[in-house]
Amino acid sequence: MTPRETIARFVENPAFQRTIIGVIIFNAVLLGLETSDTVMAAAGRLILLLDTICLYIFVAEIVLKLIAYRFAFFRSGWNIFDFAIVGIALVPAAQGFSVLRALRILRVLRVISATPSLRRVVEGFLTALPGMGSVFMLMSLIFYIGSVMATKLFGDAFPEWFGDLGASAYSLFQIMTLESWSMGIVRPVMEQFPYAWAFFVPFIMVTTFAVVNLLVGLIVNSMQDAHAEESNAATDTYRDEVLKRLEAIEKRLPKND
Amino acid sequence: MTPRETIARFVENPAFQRTIIGVIIFNAVLLGLETSDTVMAAAGRLILLLDTICLYIFVAEIVLKLIAYRFAFFRSGWNIFDFAIVGIALVPAAQGFSVLRALRILRVLRVISATPSLRRVVEGFLTALPGMGSVFMLMSLIFYIGSVMATKLFGDAFPEWFGDLGASAYSLFQIMTLESWSMGIVRPVMEQFPYAWAFFVPFIMVTTFAVVNLLVGLIVNSMQDAHAEESNAATDTYRDEVLKRLEAIEKRLPKND
Amino acid sequence: MTPRETIARFVENPAFQRTIIGVIIFNAVLLGLETSDTVMAAAGRLILLLDTICLYIFVAEIVLKLIAYRFAFFRSGWNIFDFAIVGIALVPAAQGFSVLRALRILRVLRVISATPSLRRVVEGFLTALPGMGSVFMLMSLIFYIGSVMATKLFGDAFPEWFGDLGASAYSLFQIMTLESWSMGIVRPVMEQFPYAWAFFVPFIMVTTFAVVNLLVGLIVNSMQDAHAEESNAATDTYRDEVLKRLEAIEKRLPKND
Amino acid sequence: MTPRETIARFVENPAFQRTIIGVIIFNAVLLGLETSDTVMAAAGRLILLLDTICLYIFVAEIVLKLIAYRFAFFRSGWNIFDFAIVGIALVPAAQGFSVLRALRILRVLRVISATPSLRRVVEGFLTALPGMGSVFMLMSLIFYIGSVMATKLFGDAFPEWFGDLGASAYSLFQIMTLESWSMGIVRPVMEQFPYAWAFFVPFIMVTTFAVVNLLVGLIVNSMQDAHAEESNAATDTYRDEVLKRLEAIEKRLPKND
Repeated sequence: MTPRETIARFVENPAFQRTIIGVIIFNAVLLGLETSDTVMAAAGRLILLLDTICLYIFVAEIVLKLIAYRFAFFRSGWNIFDFAIVGIALVPAAQGFSVLRALRILRVLRVISATPSLRRVVEGFLTALPGMGSVFMLMSLIFYIGSVMATKLFGDAFPEWFGDLGASAYSLFQIMTLESWSMGIVRPVMEQFPYAWAFFVPFIMVTTFAVVNLLVGLIVNSMQDAHAEESNAATDTYRDEVLKRLEAIEKRLPKND
Repeated sequence: MTPRETIARFVENPAFQRTIIGVIIFNAVLLGLETSDTVMAAAGRLILLLDTICLYIFVAEIVLKLIAYRFAFFRSGWNIFDFAIVGIALVPAAQGFSVLRALRILRVLRVISATPSLRRVVEGFLTALPGMGSVFMLMSLIFYIGSVMATKLFGDAFPEWFGDLGASAYSLFQIMTLESWSMGIVRPVMEQFPYAWAFFVPFIMVTTFAVVNLLVGLIVNSMQDAHAEESNAATDTYRDEVLKRLEAIEKRLPKND
Repeated sequence: MTPRETIARFVENPAFQRTIIGVIIFNAVLLGLETSDTVMAAAGRLILLLDTICLYIFVAEIVLKLIAYRFAFFRSGWNIFDFAIVGIALVPAAQGFSVLRALRILRVLRVISATPSLRRVVEGFLTALPGMGSVFMLMSLIFYIGSVMATKLFGDAFPEWFGDLGASAYSLFQIMTLESWSMGIVRPVMEQFPYAWAFFVPFIMVTTFAVVNLLVGLIVNSMQDAHAEESNAATDTYRDEVLKRLEAIEKRLPKND
Repeated sequence: MTPRETIARFVENPAFQRTIIGVIIFNAVLLGLETSDTVMAAAGRLILLLDTICLYIFVAEIVLKLIAYRFAFFRSGWNIFDFAIVGIALVPAAQGFSVLRALRILRVLRVISATPSLRRVVEGFLTALPGMGSVFMLMSLIFYIGSVMATKLFGDAFPEWFGDLGASAYSLFQIMTLESWSMGIVRPVMEQFPYAWAFFVPFIMVTTFAVVNLLVGLIVNSMQDAHAEESNAATDTYRDEVLKRLEAIEKRLPKND
């Protein structure tokens, strides 16, 4: 057994994987404690030390896996995911921007890559995405057109909401989620532009209808997958059986032509 | 017939069960009347007395069932449910905390355990839960990560909403339900952190998508159950018939080998 | 042909039915015009006159149908519906309460009973209701328990929202629709009762889950109906054909036992 | 090859179609840049010039297609769509009303007609519409009746929300989307009309139920289409095979009558 094989066997050991999950959860608790000022005042040094140790363990794990599998490591999307997340965690430790520090909590996402059942759920989510591609493109188009129109029509009068394309896109997203769309936005706009509803009500209807169609598409796809998977096994066996028997009967019959 | 059997027969009597449902509903009305100050001023004593009598009837019912079935009583989840609910009702009578007093209304939930059709609905709800376990774990993970990030990023500036992990989790739950997420929370936050939308908009999209997938999963599961249950009976009969007939034909054929 | 048969033939004439639909729509426009003060100032008398004429036509229609069908008239739910709606319209004309006057617009609902396609939609809605009975009972139970608890816990501090059972039920309905549940109600309540979320968040989860299950049930039922209706015709023909042929083959085979 | 055929071949060339999509996207970017005051101050002339060139390209494309296909051009709904959109774009260039100028961004919608995958999504949306016709008519009826009632009942006291039929319809649409329905509208109304909930709560329930039924109908239809399309191919082949074989067996059997 070469050293590489020894490392691979060590890394694939269930006990090792359970330990890593344990470290991830322990690290998650540490990062949660870091948000409390009183805890940090009492034991801040210890927590930061333990956090650094957790990070070193993750780095060591990935280095071991890289040695064991070399470039094959990057063939699994989940390995790239782990690599990127630990990488992000290394950057803020060096730089210390508050946003980058906050991103360290993303390390907890490694629970997903380390737990098969959660992995399957996320993989299920991701497989649903490509089928939604066209509807997403359509939604982007509607949002772009809506933003340009809203900026041109209401941008001068309501710069806070429709001042530029970004502000308009955000406001239209809020309107699509139906949050305060009328009392908060459209009624004030209608005081100056009485026909503003002719822009916003169709916008709500079209985007809601597109979202509904996304949902319908998701349901129909999942259903078909589930249906195909489940029923076909039994049906196929039965059908093969019937055809085989019919053939046997035919063979045993006298040829009368 | 032993005394135990007599009690069991008495307890299983439909008339007895209908009486208990009657007492539960009567008790529900009493507890509703208790919320009215004018009614309590006029007939408070009577209502409290009747309420106590109802409680004694429930205690007697459970004692009878315990005598009749002994430990087998606890094998049914619904019996444990009844036992716990009547137990809760006994505690506040002794202590009198307002919260515990309010919990007494939970007694009305016994209508569910006493009515087969409601029982089936609740059992249907509960059987749907395990299949949602992984998605729930994923949601908890997203909420934990989101809460830690929100607390670190916005906690100092907006202590009321994101002061600690609990406050953040509550605010993120509110945002997930889309209630005042923009006008109430994100727009004020964006006045100080102009890029706050880059945290909240993806959070909304991810959690909404997870909820939608929960819903899709529920629909597909119910559908498969319904489909499997309904169609298979007829199909199985037909398939058995075809195979049986094919076999009969084969038997009657001359052996030509 | 007896006079009764003549009337029945007249009433069932498509031209007569189209005329009635025309009168209903004309009446709908009249009732819409009545809401405009300027129109009423200019032509109020004429509009009220025409409205009364429409009402007389409806009364005449129902009288004719009653003569034609006698008591059989009341066998159709839609006839009872028409009878009740025209009846309501007669009462306010006599009394003149503003609420009763507003109810006259319900006459327009007769478009539904007069148009077969709308009738089918409404009948489809109604057939979905009985299957939802148990879930509705459960929801009522949850609302009753929630209202009693909310009234007892928060009634004294927030009489406007939870002062009595009715106010609580309305507030809980608002919370179930997620409208301003947090910023409008739960956050203010939490300022006095910090643990109020422990009541409201589970309430939202349970009621939302119940509504989702209602929806799932509706979808599964419609699906089964549609599935049963559509696929079975072809499948049944095919299955009968296969069984018939197998039987024929069996009969023609030599009996070798 | 006649000149017409040469033009038709040129217009159907994939390179030509890709160029047009490129021009549409370039034009979309230009129209986006027009919303920025700083960009317009720096390069306004250039942008308007490029925009005009894009428009000329679109006009030229349609003229070429008209020459190539003559009246057959108008047989495709998508061609009429392109024609109308470019037509709208020509009007504001002449008149310069701000609303008409804002409509020029609709040109970007041509991406849909030029991209087959987006076309299919939109066609899928449109085929779902006719099946929803009856429910839409019912919703219009409910909205009309609701608007007349709300105007008559609350119009005098709350002219801003229910002053005339249009204002009432808008407010009811807002209420149907559940936006601020209670805190924003119904609670203030209930301060003057304590029984106003008896109008609004049923309105919410009925419209929500109608929307849910629309959704259920959409899902069931898509499901049936998907189901019919997918499973029937395999099933039909199998069924034909079985029937063919049964016939063959029957033919080979000795005629024993």
